[in-house]
Amino acid sequence: MTSPFADTAISAIQFGADGLVPAIAQQHDTGEVLMMAWMNRDSVRETLETGRVCYWSRSRGAPWRKGETSGQVQRLVDLRIDCDGDTLLLLVDQTGVACHTGKRRCFFRRAGEAGLEDVPMGAVDPKALYGKAGA
Amino acid sequence: MTSPFADTAISAIQFGADGLVPAIAQQHDTGEVLMMAWMNRDSVRETLETGRVCYWSRSRGAPWRKGETSGQVQRLVDLRIDCDGDTLLLLVDQTGVACHTGKRRCFFRRAGEAGLEDVPMGAVDPKALYGKAGA
Repeated sequence: MTSPFADTAISAIQFGADGLVPAIAQQHDTGEVLMMAWMNRDSVRETLETGRVCYWSRSRGAPWRKGETSGQVQRLVDLRIDCDGDTLLLLVDQTGVACHTGKRRCFFRRAGEAGLEDVPMGAVDPKALYGKAGA
Repeated sequence: MTSPFADTAISAIQFGADGLVPAIAQQHDTGEVLMMAWMNRDSVRETLETGRVCYWSRSRGAPWRKGETSGQVQRLVDLRIDCDGDTLLLLVDQTGVACHTGKRRCFFRRAGEAGLEDVPMGAVDPKALYGKAGA
């Protein structure tokens, strides 16, 4: 399936030499920056056409339908493209937690004067999401 | 100048084969995602040690002290590192506007049903920032 809707967005995106573009996921109502991952043309198209966020997993070399294993899906609220067309901002509605560690957000460490410190945030036991480690 | 403070953070970051890591800038109090750019080890160190955000300009192949030309500097409030250590989230205090177009944020276009649409946001005339086009 193709749609002119997705075609217009894709034509405005400058994919890198590897065919990928970085995509920042932000919770649409709270403003939390949840994670950053990568998309290719097909994952941008699928995300726009289904309303459910699909990335491209660089480690697996395969589409990564967020939450497919864990149930922690991201519903797309809005897809934004930056001035140079080489970065995306996805406004999403995140079910549960975004990070494979079970934390709400992937950015849970900060550079503190005494070393790396944890940033307090909601979390679940990753075993409850995957049974074992996963994404 | 080197500091153990910066060393600890840098040792937790997985820089890419090109020596760079993506850095998302978010306004610390409003939650606005302002821009995404790249940093190398030296720019992370300078940012942590001076408290003023310095990126690495891939197009110029040089340090990019944000606001050096435009005056639209970013003061670092907090530097966060993601679960895999391969993406940074900078909580900043942005003076004026973040985007070289004069818009407050770089993500000012959205994928709409009828094509790309502008997202309303604060802006200034870029000529007032640079005299001519710049960053």
